Amino acid sequence: MDDDDLRRGRPTNHKVFGEGHAVLAGDALLTEAFGVLAAADLDPGKRAEALALLAEGAGWRGMAGGQALDLEGETLAAYDLDHLRLIHRLKTGALLRAAVEIGAVLGGAAPVERSALRAYGEAIGLAFQIQDDILDATATDADLGKRAGKDAGRGKITYPSLLGLDGARKALEEATETALCHLASLPNRNSLAAWARYLALRAK
Amino acid sequence: MDDDDLRRGRPTNHKVFGEGHAVLAGDALLTEAFGVLAAADLDPGKRAEALALLAEGAGWRGMAGGQALDLEGETLAAYDLDHLRLIHRLKTGALLRAAVEIGAVLGGAAPVERSALRAYGEAIGLAFQIQDDILDATATDADLGKRAGKDAGRGKITYPSLLGLDGARKALEEATETALCHLASLPNRNSLAAWARYLALRAK
Repeated sequence: MDDDDLRRGRPTNHKVFGEGHAVLAGDALLTEAFGVLAAADLDPGKRAEALALLAEGAGWRGMAGGQALDLEGETLAAYDLDHLRLIHRLKTGALLRAAVEIGAVLGGAAPVERSALRAYGEAIGLAFQIQDDILDATATDADLGKRAGKDAGRGKITYPSLLGLDGARKALEEATETALCHLASLPNRNSLAAWARYLALRAK
Repeated sequence: MDDDDLRRGRPTNHKVFGEGHAVLAGDALLTEAFGVLAAADLDPGKRAEALALLAEGAGWRGMAGGQALDLEGETLAAYDLDHLRLIHRLKTGALLRAAVEIGAVLGGAAPVERSALRAYGEAIGLAFQIQDDILDATATDADLGKRAGKDAGRGKITYPSLLGLDGARKALEEATETALCHLASLPNRNSLAAWARYLALRAK
């Protein structure tokens, strides 16, 4: 939907195969995610809960709804940080949170652990999107594997446009700290903590 | 993807809200179907089976895959009836078959009944698509609530273009008969039989 020519340094699906095939590839992969989970050899109750979380994260209450708000936002003259945070929370945060929470469910986490992991996923999703905004404003096409500077080119509202680059970097640090705090009480938290730190470092 | 202005007599989503929002509405509704089923108060084993059937019918092995073949077909000079039947079976038949078979699973049908209902769904899906081809060639925009005659206008391969109108009507009758035959051994088949006859009658 950003009509970019590149992703991860390769030509985008819709540029190579056309918009129709790119849309259908998205439909097919979205459907396949549910199919894989539905056919997995898991405890039936946990599997149903995981499927419901995936639907929440991917659908109108998550990714698809957030992307719709983001598209709509391109037609608005202005909106504030709260609205930008809402868009990010839905567009990117919801599916990352679902990925983390599904792991908690399938791994049999206690309610308090699950809740901490959910909050961690939420914070990491926000951090991911802030760093994406910062990188778009500061990195080169070759660094990103996609076109850089396109937010500013389209007059898009982002963390750097609302807070400046330093303000955006501070917001990224805060989101990363929040994510790490939620992990503090959990055992075996090293790889999740490393992921949070990786996001923060990429945008330095 | 046919870029039509109308569906059921009303302006299409992408004409009113733009292509991006129309694509997202599709993503959100597709996801919501899985979410509703995942959250439904059903026997967990049956629910998982229903979810797997929905994924099979909607994804690359069904609707999305068939629509991709259909799009690709628009770039081919010609293909035969077997290929057209494959496109129809996937694009329309697979999801109708899934709808019928999910009912069989949730209703606790015996294996032989389930297999008959699956074959019925397959035949009804083919009948639906043949009648859609016939109506496009014979009905008015007002009858259809969408633009008529657009297949011929785009040089699209259809049942009427391959078999002529009479041949297409004969194929529709055969598909309807096949559907009715598969119902013959089942109790409470009236509404499913009526649906098969309705499809056949619409295209007279």
